[in-house]
Amino acid sequence: MVFVTFLTDFGLQDDFVGTCHGVIARIAPEARVIDITHGIPPQAVLQGALVLRQTIPYMPVGVHLAVVDPGVGGDRRAVALRTADGRTFVGPDNGLLLLAADELGIEAAHELSDPRYRLPDVSRTFHARDVFAPAAAHVAAGVPVEELGPRLDPSTLVRLEVPEPEVGRTQLSTTVLAVDRFGNVATNARRDHVAALGASTGDRVEIRLALDRYYAELAETFADAPPGELILYEDSYGSMTLAISNGDAAGLTGVAPGDEVRIAVE
Amino acid sequence: MVFVTFLTDFGLQDDFVGTCHGVIARIAPEARVIDITHGIPPQAVLQGALVLRQTIPYMPVGVHLAVVDPGVGGDRRAVALRTADGRTFVGPDNGLLLLAADELGIEAAHELSDPRYRLPDVSRTFHARDVFAPAAAHVAAGVPVEELGPRLDPSTLVRLEVPEPEVGRTQLSTTVLAVDRFGNVATNARRDHVAALGASTGDRVEIRLALDRYYAELAETFADAPPGELILYEDSYGSMTLAISNGDAAGLTGVAPGDEVRIAVE
Amino acid sequence: MVFVTFLTDFGLQDDFVGTCHGVIARIAPEARVIDITHGIPPQAVLQGALVLRQTIPYMPVGVHLAVVDPGVGGDRRAVALRTADGRTFVGPDNGLLLLAADELGIEAAHELSDPRYRLPDVSRTFHARDVFAPAAAHVAAGVPVEELGPRLDPSTLVRLEVPEPEVGRTQLSTTVLAVDRFGNVATNARRDHVAALGASTGDRVEIRLALDRYYAELAETFADAPPGELILYEDSYGSMTLAISNGDAAGLTGVAPGDEVRIAVE
Repeated sequence: MVFVTFLTDFGLQDDFVGTCHGVIARIAPEARVIDITHGIPPQAVLQGALVLRQTIPYMPVGVHLAVVDPGVGGDRRAVALRTADGRTFVGPDNGLLLLAADELGIEAAHELSDPRYRLPDVSRTFHARDVFAPAAAHVAAGVPVEELGPRLDPSTLVRLEVPEPEVGRTQLSTTVLAVDRFGNVATNARRDHVAALGASTGDRVEIRLALDRYYAELAETFADAPPGELILYEDSYGSMTLAISNGDAAGLTGVAPGDEVRIAVE
Repeated sequence: MVFVTFLTDFGLQDDFVGTCHGVIARIAPEARVIDITHGIPPQAVLQGALVLRQTIPYMPVGVHLAVVDPGVGGDRRAVALRTADGRTFVGPDNGLLLLAADELGIEAAHELSDPRYRLPDVSRTFHARDVFAPAAAHVAAGVPVEELGPRLDPSTLVRLEVPEPEVGRTQLSTTVLAVDRFGNVATNARRDHVAALGASTGDRVEIRLALDRYYAELAETFADAPPGELILYEDSYGSMTLAISNGDAAGLTGVAPGDEVRIAVE
Repeated sequence: MVFVTFLTDFGLQDDFVGTCHGVIARIAPEARVIDITHGIPPQAVLQGALVLRQTIPYMPVGVHLAVVDPGVGGDRRAVALRTADGRTFVGPDNGLLLLAADELGIEAAHELSDPRYRLPDVSRTFHARDVFAPAAAHVAAGVPVEELGPRLDPSTLVRLEVPEPEVGRTQLSTTVLAVDRFGNVATNARRDHVAALGASTGDRVEIRLALDRYYAELAETFADAPPGELILYEDSYGSMTLAISNGDAAGLTGVAPGDEVRIAVE
């Protein structure tokens, strides 16, 4: 059983995702596709890279196709990366794959240039269909990554800078990484950042968003606070996250990915 | 061929659904997952239970994973239920599974507590990934439901109250159960409730929504009324439903799940 | 390996799509379903037909189920069409299937009337579940299309008129066919229509939308223009399309499918 996982910013309104599924099925009919998500905000490469990194440990070893590709048709390279645990990542060389692949250890990197592993006509604007999905499917069907094109030096691959919180004596300056369907607001702070402020479970912290101030309880889960109460908790991927028990923290506060959230002890 | 059906309120914007697919594939690579829907409104347990009940008859016998779980991380139990027709339902013990499972006859109920059938690290906020999907996958891979944890008395399982219409001499007071993509408004009234008012196909009934009044034709299908006309029809799951032929009844009237709709004969 | 592709206007919020997956799995458990898209705007038959035509070449040969069906429950026929390349199209006889099927050459057309290949109870409003998905699944499981019901004369099938641009000496009047997730605006003009105006890559053209005027560069891909710049390019399916590099052309201009876009040389 060979699995191809698939992550993009394509959404599900259009046929982009379905068309790539068709391309994969024609080349590798036995492969099974797992859609990690197609809800990455349009062209948000960093957010795609973060989601890919945090979900890969839950995915079977296989081929991992990811496309968030504002530079499509330009001169960014198309690549396949083999990691030490036997996974193969396929996508644009814009940093999208690297947070996940670097953690696993890149053993080989190859440019996707051999026309045998592309569709016969390659458009300028839909490389997911014409370049990336075919390459992923050929690997799933048994083509060694070495055949896809020339070997690249992994140190030349584009890498993203992940914003880190600024840590002060009584406060953290964090950046919102993602807002989910439930309105939970994940920041780039982790548990040890908050612990460094001296705050622990059950304590109240101050949350500053531009000119607004809120109070949140440091909690373990939603049920620790009464409905309607703001909490700050470590989410299931390790991000310190603002939430309202049975409510919508992003809706209340109006924050969006990229915004600053200050977390302060009183 | 083993099927796992999957219903949640997770939406498809985030990776929640895809991550659970990955977890299932790692444990039960041969299992095939059918996504019933992930569009249940956030934390709407009753709506999830109604959709599960009405769709299960169309699903192959298999494992039925459902997660709408506002109490995650608190003290609600996690359960697996085997029904008389050989299905296994997996999810939180908050009533979500019971409308479907009770109809089929619960033969055995077990708490999901054996750590062998969870992920090694169980978060406080994502039990779909860490507890429910693993249990469903292990059952799909052949683990008997008895091994998942201690037997529970089915009479102790949490059950929901489904609102029933109030039936008067000339009118019904109904509750909106769901609004679909096309703006069709499903109420909790069924055909016999409307028949009890003495109304039959082709008749005109009055629809009262707060202070607004509309007239609707009792119809069998959209094509029975001219485009733009309001109709009241029995939908494909048996709910008396407001619709506008080629239009959007929910958009016109502004109703939402939980609202009261009065249906009256003149 | 048998594939069933699936295209509708059902969206993914409700259970419509998942229920059809269940119906297919019960009848043809070995069949694999590829969701082309379920994001066709509600009841937009022409848009569904265009998407089906442009995506079918990327799909494996199989059964192609498509449902955009404003006439459900009325007197429109339900049909299966076999094309010269071995594909079978299943859906309503309202033109949805014909842009794709006519291009491939219809060898046989049959009405879906044999009750053996429907569900036992056929509702008046959900033929995707009760008629179309069962027929598609039975074909996938090996039932010849001839058994589904009486043969139809392909010339009697409903066909849609696809709007063509009006071509003047210095301008084109085009119609918006689709707006995608990225805000790219696909028109019904093709490359040769624009070439007929004497414009070529790198030229500036005028875009007139009602009373608004914009200038766009004729480009090959997004990377050809600076971020924020309006471009007109041939999309990956051959439609001349308005876009903003790293931006949202539909959001800027407010156009929607069906609107007129004039393209003029200065």
